[in-house]
Amino acid sequence: MKATVFHGKGDVRVENVPDAAVVRPSDAVVRVTHACVCGSDLWFYRGDAPWEPGWRTGHEFMGVIEEAGAGVRTLKKGDHVFAPFAYSDGTCEFCRKGLQTSCLGGGYWGGADNDGGQGEAVRAPLADATLVKLPAEVANDEKLLRAILPLTDVMGTGHHAALCAGVKPGATVAVVGDGAVGLCGVLAARRLGAARIILFGRHPDRIAVAAEFGATEVVQERGTDAVARALDMTAGGPDAVLECVGNEGSMAMATGMCRPGGAVGYVGVPYGAQQGLDLRRMFGENIALRGGVAPVRAYAEELLADVLAGKLDPSPVFDLTVGLDDVPRGYAAMDAREAIKVMVKL
Amino acid sequence: MKATVFHGKGDVRVENVPDAAVVRPSDAVVRVTHACVCGSDLWFYRGDAPWEPGWRTGHEFMGVIEEAGAGVRTLKKGDHVFAPFAYSDGTCEFCRKGLQTSCLGGGYWGGADNDGGQGEAVRAPLADATLVKLPAEVANDEKLLRAILPLTDVMGTGHHAALCAGVKPGATVAVVGDGAVGLCGVLAARRLGAARIILFGRHPDRIAVAAEFGATEVVQERGTDAVARALDMTAGGPDAVLECVGNEGSMAMATGMCRPGGAVGYVGVPYGAQQGLDLRRMFGENIALRGGVAPVRAYAEELLADVLAGKLDPSPVFDLTVGLDDVPRGYAAMDAREAIKVMVKL
Repeated sequence: MKATVFHGKGDVRVENVPDAAVVRPSDAVVRVTHACVCGSDLWFYRGDAPWEPGWRTGHEFMGVIEEAGAGVRTLKKGDHVFAPFAYSDGTCEFCRKGLQTSCLGGGYWGGADNDGGQGEAVRAPLADATLVKLPAEVANDEKLLRAILPLTDVMGTGHHAALCAGVKPGATVAVVGDGAVGLCGVLAARRLGAARIILFGRHPDRIAVAAEFGATEVVQERGTDAVARALDMTAGGPDAVLECVGNEGSMAMATGMCRPGGAVGYVGVPYGAQQGLDLRRMFGENIALRGGVAPVRAYAEELLADVLAGKLDPSPVFDLTVGLDDVPRGYAAMDAREAIKVMVKL
Repeated sequence: MKATVFHGKGDVRVENVPDAAVVRPSDAVVRVTHACVCGSDLWFYRGDAPWEPGWRTGHEFMGVIEEAGAGVRTLKKGDHVFAPFAYSDGTCEFCRKGLQTSCLGGGYWGGADNDGGQGEAVRAPLADATLVKLPAEVANDEKLLRAILPLTDVMGTGHHAALCAGVKPGATVAVVGDGAVGLCGVLAARRLGAARIILFGRHPDRIAVAAEFGATEVVQERGTDAVARALDMTAGGPDAVLECVGNEGSMAMATGMCRPGGAVGYVGVPYGAQQGLDLRRMFGENIALRGGVAPVRAYAEELLADVLAGKLDPSPVFDLTVGLDDVPRGYAAMDAREAIKVMVKL
């Protein structure tokens, strides 16, 4: 089968790899119909993450069960499913707590040991617990499938940021970062009832999506200017801040502007973020830092129900669609910020 | 009157200063009967905090109202009171939320502008909201007064750490630090129903107090050895970690050992703590960091009720009592770790 393989900085290639196959009875093989390129894929693409040549890429995908292992009880050939970006056993202490990303038997797609989502098929371990089954009627509803696909990562991650930041009905919320996760954070904050949602970003196309998603204000300044604007606009800071970037500047902004007693919900994979933490202010004003790798499996049913009911549609984050052979072009477009988020349609 | 004044590294002196007096109608003058030396006083005493010669010291005190300003409604001459380590107006947004340390009209005792607790008397601004009135019958009950005095800071701070760490009935709790705040953290965790309380400390006298306060286990290792022990003893880390020191090593221990999905409640004033944060692990395992300057005013009534009912007694943290003239000796004893916590009895 064909799949995307990392070869080095700026170099991913679609090439032949061994076919995905059931290895353990709890495995299923998913024929991929839709996948994505993620902002976090850029960390290895840009050489900032310790990735090895030969590793497989892609952690966001949906598709159709092609083969279910003998131990799989809830899924059968032909079922449509989507996959959260981590697989999990559903039974350990952390899965039971809704923290499937810390599953004792789980792991992540791609890398050295697993199939990645940016390929024709994926061996999905622990299929019963991991994969989320879709109603049969969505199979040919491309519009709905596009709206479901972000639940594999960015929509669940934006929701996690909003929960960790403590967004409540009526809250004033800041979202730092206008990537797909930040935009989904706007949507999640609106869904949770925020009264004001201030997006910190400066790309016109992204600002347009943010407005569609419920952002009530946009601040284009960065750094200390952005903090000053936020404190002024909100008379002391937003109650909840969603940090959706993960670098030093974004973390400094988030912790610098949050209202005393509030919380920063951080979901941007931290690269340099530690230096940005304004720990002195956080301590003095009791500002909490909560977040991390989003357990999107925990949110799957709740968010899926809203998508199926027509109440939630994160699909506007996709502004470029490529075929499998053009995945490298998708990376390049994301890297150049020419695309917010790339869908791979097989 | 006499009061303690900072003169430089390792140099505090008890000397004559202007008498405390009512300046604004909302002020009261408190004649101090008991005060303390705090672990956080050592930051300036050791030259680690930017303090200026001439600044007044002490932020923990109790005493008797000597004069109440014309605007004071709930207190009168002769009332016994204790003072939280910050004063606050009781009416602003943050006071109403129970975050009096972020009070828009508040401040801290001592320093350049206010009387400090380590003196004969204190002008207490915003007396109605700040000072906590004691029942008349405790006035001559020295044992009870000793048990109330830690509510000015260390007991409320330990309680804040436990709340921020999310201590719940049945929880497994780690307390990093065996100073007075750490010991009060042990007591607070027991009060909140923790099943296991593991103290990380190595001083026999402090360990003895911790055992009296409810610590079920003691770990004397530090650093990565301590983390390994904690992970092993608890099969993956304590649910709640109270960080009661504030330096790089203690924060590395706290964030390194906390169970996935758990929280570190930090109350040690951070000096170097930022470098110790294991942010990569916190992100990967969704470990929250919550805490800061404890709003001990918010906890005063609840904790006082337990002390008066005989259910809470943090007084064993005091292992040295000095008179006002001997405050410098109290600092020296704390600095040399010869005393856990010093009471100043006037």
